[in-house]
Amino acid sequence: MQHSTRIVKLGDIQIGGPEIPVIAGPCAIESFDQFFNSIQGVYQAGASAMRGGIYKMRTNPQSFQGLGQQAYPIIETVKSDFNMPLVSEVTDPRQIELMMPHVDMFQVGSRNMYNYALLRELALTKKPILLKRGFSATIDEWIQAANYILQGGNDQVVLCERGIRGFETKTRNTLDLNAVAYIKQHTNFAIVVDPSHGTGRPELMLQMSGAAIAAGADALMLEVHVKPAEALSDAAQALSLGQFEQIMNSCRRVAKAVDRYIAEPRKLALQKSKTHFNNQEISL
Amino acid sequence: MQHSTRIVKLGDIQIGGPEIPVIAGPCAIESFDQFFNSIQGVYQAGASAMRGGIYKMRTNPQSFQGLGQQAYPIIETVKSDFNMPLVSEVTDPRQIELMMPHVDMFQVGSRNMYNYALLRELALTKKPILLKRGFSATIDEWIQAANYILQGGNDQVVLCERGIRGFETKTRNTLDLNAVAYIKQHTNFAIVVDPSHGTGRPELMLQMSGAAIAAGADALMLEVHVKPAEALSDAAQALSLGQFEQIMNSCRRVAKAVDRYIAEPRKLALQKSKTHFNNQEISL
Amino acid sequence: MQHSTRIVKLGDIQIGGPEIPVIAGPCAIESFDQFFNSIQGVYQAGASAMRGGIYKMRTNPQSFQGLGQQAYPIIETVKSDFNMPLVSEVTDPRQIELMMPHVDMFQVGSRNMYNYALLRELALTKKPILLKRGFSATIDEWIQAANYILQGGNDQVVLCERGIRGFETKTRNTLDLNAVAYIKQHTNFAIVVDPSHGTGRPELMLQMSGAAIAAGADALMLEVHVKPAEALSDAAQALSLGQFEQIMNSCRRVAKAVDRYIAEPRKLALQKSKTHFNNQEISL
Amino acid sequence: MQHSTRIVKLGDIQIGGPEIPVIAGPCAIESFDQFFNSIQGVYQAGASAMRGGIYKMRTNPQSFQGLGQQAYPIIETVKSDFNMPLVSEVTDPRQIELMMPHVDMFQVGSRNMYNYALLRELALTKKPILLKRGFSATIDEWIQAANYILQGGNDQVVLCERGIRGFETKTRNTLDLNAVAYIKQHTNFAIVVDPSHGTGRPELMLQMSGAAIAAGADALMLEVHVKPAEALSDAAQALSLGQFEQIMNSCRRVAKAVDRYIAEPRKLALQKSKTHFNNQEISL
Repeated sequence: MQHSTRIVKLGDIQIGGPEIPVIAGPCAIESFDQFFNSIQGVYQAGASAMRGGIYKMRTNPQSFQGLGQQAYPIIETVKSDFNMPLVSEVTDPRQIELMMPHVDMFQVGSRNMYNYALLRELALTKKPILLKRGFSATIDEWIQAANYILQGGNDQVVLCERGIRGFETKTRNTLDLNAVAYIKQHTNFAIVVDPSHGTGRPELMLQMSGAAIAAGADALMLEVHVKPAEALSDAAQALSLGQFEQIMNSCRRVAKAVDRYIAEPRKLALQKSKTHFNNQEISL
Repeated sequence: MQHSTRIVKLGDIQIGGPEIPVIAGPCAIESFDQFFNSIQGVYQAGASAMRGGIYKMRTNPQSFQGLGQQAYPIIETVKSDFNMPLVSEVTDPRQIELMMPHVDMFQVGSRNMYNYALLRELALTKKPILLKRGFSATIDEWIQAANYILQGGNDQVVLCERGIRGFETKTRNTLDLNAVAYIKQHTNFAIVVDPSHGTGRPELMLQMSGAAIAAGADALMLEVHVKPAEALSDAAQALSLGQFEQIMNSCRRVAKAVDRYIAEPRKLALQKSKTHFNNQEISL
Repeated sequence: MQHSTRIVKLGDIQIGGPEIPVIAGPCAIESFDQFFNSIQGVYQAGASAMRGGIYKMRTNPQSFQGLGQQAYPIIETVKSDFNMPLVSEVTDPRQIELMMPHVDMFQVGSRNMYNYALLRELALTKKPILLKRGFSATIDEWIQAANYILQGGNDQVVLCERGIRGFETKTRNTLDLNAVAYIKQHTNFAIVVDPSHGTGRPELMLQMSGAAIAAGADALMLEVHVKPAEALSDAAQALSLGQFEQIMNSCRRVAKAVDRYIAEPRKLALQKSKTHFNNQEISL
Repeated sequence: MQHSTRIVKLGDIQIGGPEIPVIAGPCAIESFDQFFNSIQGVYQAGASAMRGGIYKMRTNPQSFQGLGQQAYPIIETVKSDFNMPLVSEVTDPRQIELMMPHVDMFQVGSRNMYNYALLRELALTKKPILLKRGFSATIDEWIQAANYILQGGNDQVVLCERGIRGFETKTRNTLDLNAVAYIKQHTNFAIVVDPSHGTGRPELMLQMSGAAIAAGADALMLEVHVKPAEALSDAAQALSLGQFEQIMNSCRRVAKAVDRYIAEPRKLALQKSKTHFNNQEISL
């Protein structure tokens, strides 16, 4: 099955091959310390790529909207420390040019899956795109949205299942792993699974991360925060570093059971950037 | 997590312990040959219990409604050959008495989850009950339906997730593995997963059976037919014996990855019943 | 359009003709006073038939389950006072015989629409049946459930739209008036609309009752309680008598705009039963 | 109830007052003849404003995407002939400047309701905005999207209910009139109803247009095409001019029943533009 998946490159890692990279980090980049410490933790636990929102889409116009351009120097420092590619969401075609030098994969969020104007623009960039499923999009509509990017000349597209909306209120969304199995059987797209939005509940993420891998996920994307209770967005669904480490250990075993693998935990070389950066100032 | 699950006995097997029993067989018992051959196949592949409908609930009143009482001699012969307990659906309180001697676990189907009159009656039997989730039931309503049985004096209840109804048309239902993980974390019910109804597509069942186990399923229930194309009900979702065997092999590996296990394949001792039974006649 | 509707008789009123009868009363019959006073109020406002639950289906097994047989003398007295037919829900085939002398139309509740055992039994009674749509039933499944009754030999079936389940939480259900218009255009079933369950909010019922009539409803069914705040079930959605009267006035105008009509308000002849009944005792 | 609605001006007509303006026209502007003839028909039947897509959002990237800038001369000619304001959908912030001189109200389509970048941009224009509900948006999310526009400094926002997505397949969407009644009771937004997308079936639109008015709609929006079978987009749901006229007649009566009114049919003064325009050429 896996042999026909079109492999997409995210920095020097591959999505769609035997390795299952884990993309982890906070919902939003809030400050240097918050981002550095979160990424340091996920790096040590074995994450292969980092995530972090620069421009946030918030249902409530009063909510924290992200650091915007103030995030770029933070990103550059953390990237050079950990040498991990960054996935970050683009919410407006006019952000593309600014984000280009700093972001390794553009994420199209669930609420923008049908924003064809944005998709066409992203097709021109030739950067890899992570296309989240609209939370009420059919599988067909999702594939057709991906086709907007392919036909625009960019074939570096991975799909991302992040839960669909239904009547259940115990979980934030319903993670649709049927769709993951379906995509693997019937298309050659690589597919990422996001159990953070897909469940909205940290205590379910270990099991659902393993389930995602068994269903055929080519990568996982998880929200991890060095201090979950203090997160400025999506605090309720952020994993602690300890929870994330347990999930990684558990997923390594499930991955092996389906003939795939996840990067091992690693030690961290000395960092100098942190002290250096702390002397600068970022005003929210 | 597993330690607090209330174990329910199905014949001499346990649901809720480290073993993950697989309940397999055809949607409906159609004839001796069909049932014997299907059950022989699933037995050899490692199934621990058998399923087979006696009274079918059909949306269309013209569809095949099951063999009814003509199924009982078939059941008795097949049970004595393979020594496996039978799970079968009860659709009317007045069937209970007839089914009692032949059925080891009563299944309450998705469309009867809210049939509290039936649930109260089943509570009086003290037989184990497999309570399928209504296809649009919230987790809360499902647990409350189980409470009808518990409060009626029967604590031998297992829940069964079989997919929920939504907007997606590529899959018959949306298998809600979030609900499985939730039930394991927040209740002490054992939970069975039915990927057959949960996907409606044989080509997705291998992945989704593994996913169910990773999500915490205590047992699997799968529709298997010796000749899927000829099945009188739910033909489109029936697994062949070959597909079932592959699923069992794959699930054994995933089960180990989460510190559980599934019965190994077994050889079959000689059967005499088959020849004997064929001389009898059942008129549909 | 209306000419092809199969007319169903409820006592001496017709459902499916130019008159739009309004069926009103409390969710459950709780006591003589509560039922008498509620029905007196709806009678005066122009209701043509009364509703009131004898056996309640409650999600929570601890909730009030209805008066059961103690309701029958209350019903008989109130029926003789107001000379209105009664619609009441049957939840178990074994209630049918007891209910037969007291109930003029059997209601099959939303959670029993798929209870084919019950439908087949009701087909044998030849009493008119009000078949509520399962809250997640497709129009096709609903029609097929009605066919269970028709093919059982009873053609006195009216459908009842009472809202479907979705993701919206501001309203209890989503009243699907598309389905009403569809049923009128594509079948010859008469159709009743229940804005009480369909909205769950008294402040929306005036507008939605009018909308139901404009969409083609052949009758309305509304929950009205003499003291809504004290209702033992569904208190949040019960209308006061004052609200009900306003709804009736508003609906009369909309009905005329679509060439139909609703009974006028009427004065009440003197009642003796009330004083008489109060001397008896009902123990909850 | 109506007294507190914030009135929004569309050209010289008001949305939110006692008059219920009807906005009608084809899904997309396809050619001068198609647009002129469609608008002439709806004008004569009593429509107060015209609709017509310039830039279409199509799920399939291969489908007809609208005339784009070639539509502007057509629009100008037809506007001068009928003196009706135009509502047209904006799908990309970069279209705003081009559309400004030609469009009297910007429509935000269902798939763009969460496109906050677009909403913020529209807030700066001070033109009236018709904000369609996302087809799976909760009422809360819809109101919050409207708040993006209000807080951006533009209070000329009307909401538009156009059907939500569910499990039903007989109708394209489920027109949620509960939401209309809710918006009227709990907010001061004016609300438009679009039965074309809300049902997807011409034969249901007469009843559902009346139902929308009874539920509290402040305006209707309907897709009408001079030759429905030849429509380049959404052909299946386009009304003929004859059907539209019947709907208008029926809606006038329902509007009166709720103390509102709809413009009367009118005769058409002689047009010269048509002959003139036909000599020009538009290449698709």
